[in-house]
Amino acid sequence: MFYTDYKLQYPVNVETPNPVFARALQQAIGGIEGEIRVAMQYFFQGMGIRGPSKYKEMLLNTAAEELGHIEMLCVAVAKNLEGAPLQIQEEIAANPVAGSVLNGMNFRQILSAGLAALPVDADGVPFNMSHVYASGNIAGDMYANVTAEATGRTLATRLYHMTNDPGMKDMLSYLIARDTMHQNQWLAVLVDLDTAEPQLPIPNTFPMEQENQDFSYVYLGFTADGAEPPRGRWSEGQSIDGRGTFSIRPMEPMGPVPAMGPANPDTYPQEAQLDKGGETEPGVSDSLQGGSQ
Amino acid sequence: MFYTDYKLQYPVNVETPNPVFARALQQAIGGIEGEIRVAMQYFFQGMGIRGPSKYKEMLLNTAAEELGHIEMLCVAVAKNLEGAPLQIQEEIAANPVAGSVLNGMNFRQILSAGLAALPVDADGVPFNMSHVYASGNIAGDMYANVTAEATGRTLATRLYHMTNDPGMKDMLSYLIARDTMHQNQWLAVLVDLDTAEPQLPIPNTFPMEQENQDFSYVYLGFTADGAEPPRGRWSEGQSIDGRGTFSIRPMEPMGPVPAMGPANPDTYPQEAQLDKGGETEPGVSDSLQGGSQ
Amino acid sequence: MFYTDYKLQYPVNVETPNPVFARALQQAIGGIEGEIRVAMQYFFQGMGIRGPSKYKEMLLNTAAEELGHIEMLCVAVAKNLEGAPLQIQEEIAANPVAGSVLNGMNFRQILSAGLAALPVDADGVPFNMSHVYASGNIAGDMYANVTAEATGRTLATRLYHMTNDPGMKDMLSYLIARDTMHQNQWLAVLVDLDTAEPQLPIPNTFPMEQENQDFSYVYLGFTADGAEPPRGRWSEGQSIDGRGTFSIRPMEPMGPVPAMGPANPDTYPQEAQLDKGGETEPGVSDSLQGGSQ
Amino acid sequence: MFYTDYKLQYPVNVETPNPVFARALQQAIGGIEGEIRVAMQYFFQGMGIRGPSKYKEMLLNTAAEELGHIEMLCVAVAKNLEGAPLQIQEEIAANPVAGSVLNGMNFRQILSAGLAALPVDADGVPFNMSHVYASGNIAGDMYANVTAEATGRTLATRLYHMTNDPGMKDMLSYLIARDTMHQNQWLAVLVDLDTAEPQLPIPNTFPMEQENQDFSYVYLGFTADGAEPPRGRWSEGQSIDGRGTFSIRPMEPMGPVPAMGPANPDTYPQEAQLDKGGETEPGVSDSLQGGSQ
Amino acid sequence: MFYTDYKLQYPVNVETPNPVFARALQQAIGGIEGEIRVAMQYFFQGMGIRGPSKYKEMLLNTAAEELGHIEMLCVAVAKNLEGAPLQIQEEIAANPVAGSVLNGMNFRQILSAGLAALPVDADGVPFNMSHVYASGNIAGDMYANVTAEATGRTLATRLYHMTNDPGMKDMLSYLIARDTMHQNQWLAVLVDLDTAEPQLPIPNTFPMEQENQDFSYVYLGFTADGAEPPRGRWSEGQSIDGRGTFSIRPMEPMGPVPAMGPANPDTYPQEAQLDKGGETEPGVSDSLQGGSQ
Amino acid sequence: MFYTDYKLQYPVNVETPNPVFARALQQAIGGIEGEIRVAMQYFFQGMGIRGPSKYKEMLLNTAAEELGHIEMLCVAVAKNLEGAPLQIQEEIAANPVAGSVLNGMNFRQILSAGLAALPVDADGVPFNMSHVYASGNIAGDMYANVTAEATGRTLATRLYHMTNDPGMKDMLSYLIARDTMHQNQWLAVLVDLDTAEPQLPIPNTFPMEQENQDFSYVYLGFTADGAEPPRGRWSEGQSIDGRGTFSIRPMEPMGPVPAMGPANPDTYPQEAQLDKGGETEPGVSDSLQGGSQ
Repeated sequence: MFYTDYKLQYPVNVETPNPVFARALQQAIGGIEGEIRVAMQYFFQGMGIRGPSKYKEMLLNTAAEELGHIEMLCVAVAKNLEGAPLQIQEEIAANPVAGSVLNGMNFRQILSAGLAALPVDADGVPFNMSHVYASGNIAGDMYANVTAEATGRTLATRLYHMTNDPGMKDMLSYLIARDTMHQNQWLAVLVDLDTAEPQLPIPNTFPMEQENQDFSYVYLGFTADGAEPPRGRWSEGQSIDGRGTFSIRPMEPMGPVPAMGPANPDTYPQEAQLDKGGETEPGVSDSLQGGSQ
Repeated sequence: MFYTDYKLQYPVNVETPNPVFARALQQAIGGIEGEIRVAMQYFFQGMGIRGPSKYKEMLLNTAAEELGHIEMLCVAVAKNLEGAPLQIQEEIAANPVAGSVLNGMNFRQILSAGLAALPVDADGVPFNMSHVYASGNIAGDMYANVTAEATGRTLATRLYHMTNDPGMKDMLSYLIARDTMHQNQWLAVLVDLDTAEPQLPIPNTFPMEQENQDFSYVYLGFTADGAEPPRGRWSEGQSIDGRGTFSIRPMEPMGPVPAMGPANPDTYPQEAQLDKGGETEPGVSDSLQGGSQ
Repeated sequence: MFYTDYKLQYPVNVETPNPVFARALQQAIGGIEGEIRVAMQYFFQGMGIRGPSKYKEMLLNTAAEELGHIEMLCVAVAKNLEGAPLQIQEEIAANPVAGSVLNGMNFRQILSAGLAALPVDADGVPFNMSHVYASGNIAGDMYANVTAEATGRTLATRLYHMTNDPGMKDMLSYLIARDTMHQNQWLAVLVDLDTAEPQLPIPNTFPMEQENQDFSYVYLGFTADGAEPPRGRWSEGQSIDGRGTFSIRPMEPMGPVPAMGPANPDTYPQEAQLDKGGETEPGVSDSLQGGSQ
Repeated sequence: MFYTDYKLQYPVNVETPNPVFARALQQAIGGIEGEIRVAMQYFFQGMGIRGPSKYKEMLLNTAAEELGHIEMLCVAVAKNLEGAPLQIQEEIAANPVAGSVLNGMNFRQILSAGLAALPVDADGVPFNMSHVYASGNIAGDMYANVTAEATGRTLATRLYHMTNDPGMKDMLSYLIARDTMHQNQWLAVLVDLDTAEPQLPIPNTFPMEQENQDFSYVYLGFTADGAEPPRGRWSEGQSIDGRGTFSIRPMEPMGPVPAMGPANPDTYPQEAQLDKGGETEPGVSDSLQGGSQ
Repeated sequence: MFYTDYKLQYPVNVETPNPVFARALQQAIGGIEGEIRVAMQYFFQGMGIRGPSKYKEMLLNTAAEELGHIEMLCVAVAKNLEGAPLQIQEEIAANPVAGSVLNGMNFRQILSAGLAALPVDADGVPFNMSHVYASGNIAGDMYANVTAEATGRTLATRLYHMTNDPGMKDMLSYLIARDTMHQNQWLAVLVDLDTAEPQLPIPNTFPMEQENQDFSYVYLGFTADGAEPPRGRWSEGQSIDGRGTFSIRPMEPMGPVPAMGPANPDTYPQEAQLDKGGETEPGVSDSLQGGSQ
Repeated sequence: MFYTDYKLQYPVNVETPNPVFARALQQAIGGIEGEIRVAMQYFFQGMGIRGPSKYKEMLLNTAAEELGHIEMLCVAVAKNLEGAPLQIQEEIAANPVAGSVLNGMNFRQILSAGLAALPVDADGVPFNMSHVYASGNIAGDMYANVTAEATGRTLATRLYHMTNDPGMKDMLSYLIARDTMHQNQWLAVLVDLDTAEPQLPIPNTFPMEQENQDFSYVYLGFTADGAEPPRGRWSEGQSIDGRGTFSIRPMEPMGPVPAMGPANPDTYPQEAQLDKGGETEPGVSDSLQGGSQ
């Protein structure tokens, strides 16, 4: 269950409302790096993760925190929209500044919301729940969470740079700090998951001998002219998971040009795609029998 | 520039075509954990990343690899669709098995593609390019890539478990191995980025003193009854970035219930939302002046 | 701020797990009639609405309730997925029932979530935040909320009919009751908004004399043959807002065929679309001057 | 069947083309409050609704009207784009006004449409047919329609306020009047549906005794500190449907923390999520048997 | 303006309702090859196209036809859903056939629509208006229309093959015939647009001398090993537009590896991406000055 | 397999960076007329098309070319963003020009990408893979490709007109030339598919006698008042496919108003929608028996 008290986690003040910054703030609400995403991602991970219950609880607890961040940002948007222009200046030549402000605004904050925040990004694209990553594998989910907080903190620092308003800078200094904590928090979970096996590769429950281990630690090159691909830590030394040694090699095709043969007439292709008495190469169904191909 | 030779990276064989597995394979093509996503993500990161050029080249090189994985999976789908039923059995009672197979198929593989793969997931939802994470911060991007490969490898192991076809298991054993390599590869980049500063928190170029450091390493509790939130590695010991010490504390609101005051008449609210001579509380514009709030 | 205690609002039990019903339940989570939608809609209305603060608080309070409903449904999905088949039966003829069950499942509950709920609908389409209606006009929003609860209750009754599991029927009987309350609740707000003006038409702050009142209460007919359009309460008697009297009339065009004249060469149309010395009719720019048209 | 005569329902004139207003008008075409939505919603309701045929006909008749509104708005966009700038001013300093106009425009009206309307909203997001609400329950649909017309009229009044062009104000005065009628029309249908049962709660065919009536008329409080939730018409007096009496009470969890137990190894979780000999709590499958939980 | 008479263009009969075919039919309603798409595409082309008015009228006239096709298909879906199962068979072993039918159904036709059609495709994905192609160039639009009718006719023939119901086959034989006509119709427009210039390349108003004509008629090869790319009509003979001669050549890069230099510190990259005193290559801003690069 | 060499197909230079043009260029990357679309469309067509292998190879070869075009445009965006303003000017009155530039920018190029290209269109809408048309019928696909290249060339000419930068005009002159070639290339394939049957109508493998040939070559009129619909090449002379003769006729309904009868009580409609002893007209299930209807 969730509860609320209508109060803000942290004060949200705006000295000089700026309706163009209200557009930028939308990215932190409804952008893929934003707060709806992390609130819903931690929520669904918390509901879906199996294993020791402390992880579920830790996730739901932080989901509650992120809901509060959406609240803060909604208030920030509303305050930046105070006094925003609501009319197009026909005589823009006489007042270029007001015109310029309206041009830079998100029109739906006026037209759809009546001067309030929307669950959309800075370009007005609504948040889509496909961005809620909750795989059932806790380590995979933790990397998804570090990603969210790393791109989230990068976004917040860019917003911090974009504004000079002391209230907004103060609010962002709090959100940036929380992103710092959360990056550390999710990585700490990977340490907390203490098991006999290393955590990598994810999932660590799939038997390594079932993967084709000739390709598990080699950086493959796909350079057109056979030139060596770029070297780095990824091409030499022990692998990060401690289970192998990096190497490097240019890749050659191991499979043939796939035979797609004539089309099935019942799918209504063009006539030229049909089998016409040996004119075309052997079809897929033939090669299906030849295991080695 | 990109080049092609129409050949497959690795053989793709199907002993017993299974059109329901052709639906499942779609997740590895057009799902958020799939190959279109990584191909496009590494491509856009490669084009957008600034700094030493080797990272750009390493990313584009692996983007080329992933394009080849899409090819392999498209062939796998086509081969699994060989001989698939194209007609609804009116007399399904007389042949429940064929009916059952068609019921489990993705109809658009028949109706839209004529027995071929689509750039959609296992539920038929088209891939959306908003899932291409390319932030301009290389460390954030690397975590996004580990996420993609961790959820991708988890998906591939589930597909491996779902099928008994030797050809499909062989193909998946290769893709799983490449996911192992790529998880290691992206983490190796974080090591390769050798600088005076630790890589965390991301971005590591934002001055730590500008964030509100009272909140940088504390696990905040949002439990309804003030019960202590779950403890773990995230609540004690040195933080993972090595810059602080984890602690824990229940959170109290630091901000007020935000005053949203009367509505602007020019946004056409209901009459009850207008200011009616002192009946409503002070509005936002007032509180904007009061910095402490 | 939001808080949580990890507990369920109401017990969620499943006697006989049914993985096909787990697909159906997704509609109540991520469908347009579902719980994510109402949770987020009441949340954003609560943050955006201006006027007396009690409405804001009532909305956020019920948003917290709806978050708990998502929790319940996620548990219901997970329990229905217990023991679900994870492998495709190659020899489906030997076991048509198991095959049939897998065919009816949402594959992403297996492949993407590892046997858990997703923020998607029963067809696997992710919830899209464009469905969060928060207009800034409280009466418009209340109708959006009645809609959500009416379609939500209709959905819940269909799910109730679809299953025979006593645990699921008990859970749904609670959710249906809450939908009953919420339909009443949002309509009660319209009564609570007591003002000199009727609440309709929405917004009631736009001066009626600025609309073209010749068309405010007439049911217009667009029947092809001039036959009278269907009569009903909407074509006679006092209008529901009490401000007018319904009438009915067949509609005739009041405007001309719009002149779209020759194309601007700088938009690169085909040559035939350009003005070629009087061959085409007068363009838009001419008619723009003629106010009457 | 549908028929057309290419003429406009109502004159559409523009005295002073304003390409920034052409962006704003897009919301009334392809926005969720716009005309494509109502045309398609009434169309699909008309095709899907069962019961007396007069409702079907009334819906299709008004669908035809709304198609004509899209026409009007497309002409309004095209006329506002007459003479719009098509080139970026490199020397913007020398001509800030023209630059400012282009900045505020929807670029796709130029680049994709060659100075014409698009089926997108004011932020350029294409209309998505998931917004067509047609539930098969006529009362639920009528509330969806009132919502569409209430948010639609609110949008139209904001557009009316945004422009000073007499032609545009005249066109909008007509559309606003039609929204007035349609709000009344859909509510009149609820009256017209004269039955022994009240129309509420929707659906009114579900037996009330099958819902958990302890929760049908109580406003539940989810305040974090147990403070009483906000009172209003929704917490006292007869319920709006006339079937109960409103009350209020703080909510306590009635269900436990849901047991999610160890993960299924075949979903490839991390090792720490597996059952390790009594270290974790009892799993879901156990609690499934315990009906009371 | 649009008008309606509620009647069907062509009879729609179903002898044996088949709820799985009701899923397949959705592709013809809300799929990208479906009727909503063509209705809206011809509508928006009709409203946006400039030049001789007969094209606008012809387009709107056919848009009206396509609206009638949506009606027909909605009725076909509803009739195929008559008697569809609405309950999950718990004892599916005892009745595999009924279970199998429900498994193959679109659940939202039950849950969201109460046994009616939805504006979605066969996988349940809602139609998205971004598929409305209306470029303002009439020849480009005509090719978009031929595409829609060619993929639409292919879809209709596959549906024709999928069913054995005489009523459905009769309805589809009409829709297939209309697709035949419309393919011819749109190509006839290209002939009708009689001008001094050929219609190709589109747009034919862009001066050919402003394109880099060295590359206008050469089939470029991107084969990895420099092997000759596949020859055909596209590599020899007069070009289809009659303005050039086809040739073939392997492609070599004409541009360098793009220099992306150090990152701007104000975008908050990682430290390793910053300029560190000559360690990195020259940045973009340098090369911007050198026109030749 | 795909390979890369990191180099550009053609030089990309920018003399005067213009961040507003960087917004416009997004349409050519992630717009429906853009390069991601053609790269992925030719890729999926190449993987899905059956018949002679040369078509598959020709398609994949050109897919590789288009990947290189995305690279060029990403570099063009990055170079146009050099020196772009990253801060909102509070004192915009003192510097209207800088403010105006920021207003016209795509904020996500700053906030999400750190001054780089995104896979979105000029309005910030991410590319959606539903726009990848690959029908399995090669002729239908070729028309889809001509459409893509025709709208793509139209877009490129509009971008060419929008900028005065010599580097950008040079890059676009190359892309426009390639669009010329590709329009010709896809039409040449239709010639290359030499068969006994004409290519039209598509698919040409469906037996013409199975369509209702009374409607195959007649332009139907849907004018409201029975006025003759517009005449042109589409209403007289031999049909373009050479199989028939165009004619014209006003359309009359051939089907009745569809009977939708009473609703199924198990779908929980309103009471008024139920059958109430002969009060409503005969339902669908009745008319299903009557074949003639």
